[in-house]
Amino acid sequence: MTFDLLHTDSSARAGIIHTDHGDIETPIFMPVGTQGAVKAVEQRELEELGAQIILGNTYHLYLRPGVELLKTMRGLHRFMSWTKPLLTDSGGYQVFSLSDLRKISDEGVTFKSHLDGSAHFFSPEDVINIERAIGSDIMMVLDECTPYPCEHEYAKVSNKLTVQWAQRCQKEFHSTDPLFEHTQALFGIVQGSVFKDIRKESAEALTSQEFDGYAIGGLAVGEPVEIMYELTEFCTELLPVNKPRYLMGVGTPENLLECVERGVDMFDCVLPTRNGRNGMVFTRNGKMNLRNAQYRTEELPVDEVCECYLCKNFSRAYLRHLFQTKEILALQLASLHNLTFYLWLLKEARKKILKNEFSLWKKEMIAQCQSSNSTT
Amino acid sequence: MTFDLLHTDSSARAGIIHTDHGDIETPIFMPVGTQGAVKAVEQRELEELGAQIILGNTYHLYLRPGVELLKTMRGLHRFMSWTKPLLTDSGGYQVFSLSDLRKISDEGVTFKSHLDGSAHFFSPEDVINIERAIGSDIMMVLDECTPYPCEHEYAKVSNKLTVQWAQRCQKEFHSTDPLFEHTQALFGIVQGSVFKDIRKESAEALTSQEFDGYAIGGLAVGEPVEIMYELTEFCTELLPVNKPRYLMGVGTPENLLECVERGVDMFDCVLPTRNGRNGMVFTRNGKMNLRNAQYRTEELPVDEVCECYLCKNFSRAYLRHLFQTKEILALQLASLHNLTFYLWLLKEARKKILKNEFSLWKKEMIAQCQSSNSTT
Repeated sequence: MTFDLLHTDSSARAGIIHTDHGDIETPIFMPVGTQGAVKAVEQRELEELGAQIILGNTYHLYLRPGVELLKTMRGLHRFMSWTKPLLTDSGGYQVFSLSDLRKISDEGVTFKSHLDGSAHFFSPEDVINIERAIGSDIMMVLDECTPYPCEHEYAKVSNKLTVQWAQRCQKEFHSTDPLFEHTQALFGIVQGSVFKDIRKESAEALTSQEFDGYAIGGLAVGEPVEIMYELTEFCTELLPVNKPRYLMGVGTPENLLECVERGVDMFDCVLPTRNGRNGMVFTRNGKMNLRNAQYRTEELPVDEVCECYLCKNFSRAYLRHLFQTKEILALQLASLHNLTFYLWLLKEARKKILKNEFSLWKKEMIAQCQSSNSTT
Repeated sequence: MTFDLLHTDSSARAGIIHTDHGDIETPIFMPVGTQGAVKAVEQRELEELGAQIILGNTYHLYLRPGVELLKTMRGLHRFMSWTKPLLTDSGGYQVFSLSDLRKISDEGVTFKSHLDGSAHFFSPEDVINIERAIGSDIMMVLDECTPYPCEHEYAKVSNKLTVQWAQRCQKEFHSTDPLFEHTQALFGIVQGSVFKDIRKESAEALTSQEFDGYAIGGLAVGEPVEIMYELTEFCTELLPVNKPRYLMGVGTPENLLECVERGVDMFDCVLPTRNGRNGMVFTRNGKMNLRNAQYRTEELPVDEVCECYLCKNFSRAYLRHLFQTKEILALQLASLHNLTFYLWLLKEARKKILKNEFSLWKKEMIAQCQSSNSTT
């Protein structure tokens, strides 16, 4: 994996990540395919809507289908018939948010499966080897994602462990080979909760180790949005310019644009698919909750300039009818549209960065996205 | 709507139904889109898998989105963005199976909505006018679908009413015009439970009225399959050769082929989509329940010669993983495949009829479909 930074417009960046499964034009939004599938969206539809990379989750894929089957199938790309790049979250976040009775030691983390309560153990080395079996193009180190709020002392101790684990992950990464016929990259994860001194320690420790890219973790976990923006900016300024930066688990369209402005290149979030399944669609003219009665007779498409299958063929009234009648098709069409919108938004951001027009466009776009009257 | 009978092979028939929304090559399987959507399958996917006509349901569409909205949207074709033919079931079956406190009089049927308990009334004339608002290419008369088992006396009285209602539907049909820019046809429905004398009365009364086609209703409601076959054959022999025959709510692949042999042209059933959503797929080599552990590591596609998106791209192991992890994509892919198989089966039957090879092929195909070992 290599990264070319093509252009900066103030702190906003346009670049290209080259992987053996193809290029990724940044800034990029990465649809979340936790268990080897993006919820309610077919792989061919992901390609159609312009997805350049999708996520898998190490914790979930380790539990199901399991490492042995992933090896038998020669990796997740082949298993799920996805030919473009894959990134795997390390599972650290899930171990801490989903599983019961987790117990952290220097050695790693013991946890019980959220599925059946069975006991498991992840060392940093284990996580690298699971990600080898998955065969993701971009692997993440094992980290502890601190909750919000979090005591300074806890965040400091936690980050010390996260940095140690990152070093062990990298050592394991360099002493093992990919299992399949493509290279894999490894990203470090900057933690430190809302404390700048710990974020600085974390970023310095990790950048001294030459990872292929750097993620910012432990944000968007409940803290005020202004703090999230401030810490994102603080972190990107500490990270090397020649490596991609990935802000984990963020966010709304507004969050994405604000953080692109602060130097972030990569994003993932369940919002477009999860909210889509709940009847909420994102458009250039604000959010709409299709369950609202106001859309009952609206013949307009969800977004008049959107090129997705939903917007080119169906009215708001029809999509509302599908939600009212609990049709699975509602989940499919709303997810498809929301991902199309998220991908479009960052593609458009990239164009504006390349023309040094990002800042003004961002302001207008955010104002549009926040407008409450979506009927044009 | 017109019907050309092209060829008969013993009693099996190959024909074409011409409608303003295109031709339907019979024998045909019609996917069920009860509420204006085929569950978990996109309209463009229905076209891709070769669907030539789909069903809507008058009872459901009357409740949601309602007649007024259907008129505003200028019919169901436009509302759901479906350009090929639509057939609407009259809702008789649903009134009797889903709703509470139904009360039948000569005038019509009073019922309470299964959604909110609100009271409604359908006269035969009402049903025609709802189907006018839907704008289906083929409309069905209001009937009472008798349960199984059913007393001879009850079936006789019920059928007398069904015949009267059919006459009133036809009268209303001839005294009203389509609301949109295409013609609509009306089918009668032969009832009479398992009693040949009543079936004969019903068929004679209806055929004397010159409907555009004839359905056989009240079968596949719990009676032994041999009785279903016997009565289907008994009915088709009473129906005019120059009109299409539609066996309502049938059935398994075996049922379809047996009834094609007995002179049926059209079928609808929720089996391919409902069973698909439960993890059961139909193949040329028998049924498979993808939840079974035996498919955990199987790299073969569900059906090696099937041309659908599932079979061309994914393994049984992946589809099983999607069912195990409760991914919506599992429902999408299994439904898509099962409909592809059903459409393929009747397309193949048609080819064999045209070559006078139906009978032998049918025996082989049924033996294949019933084999329990699906691994080739």
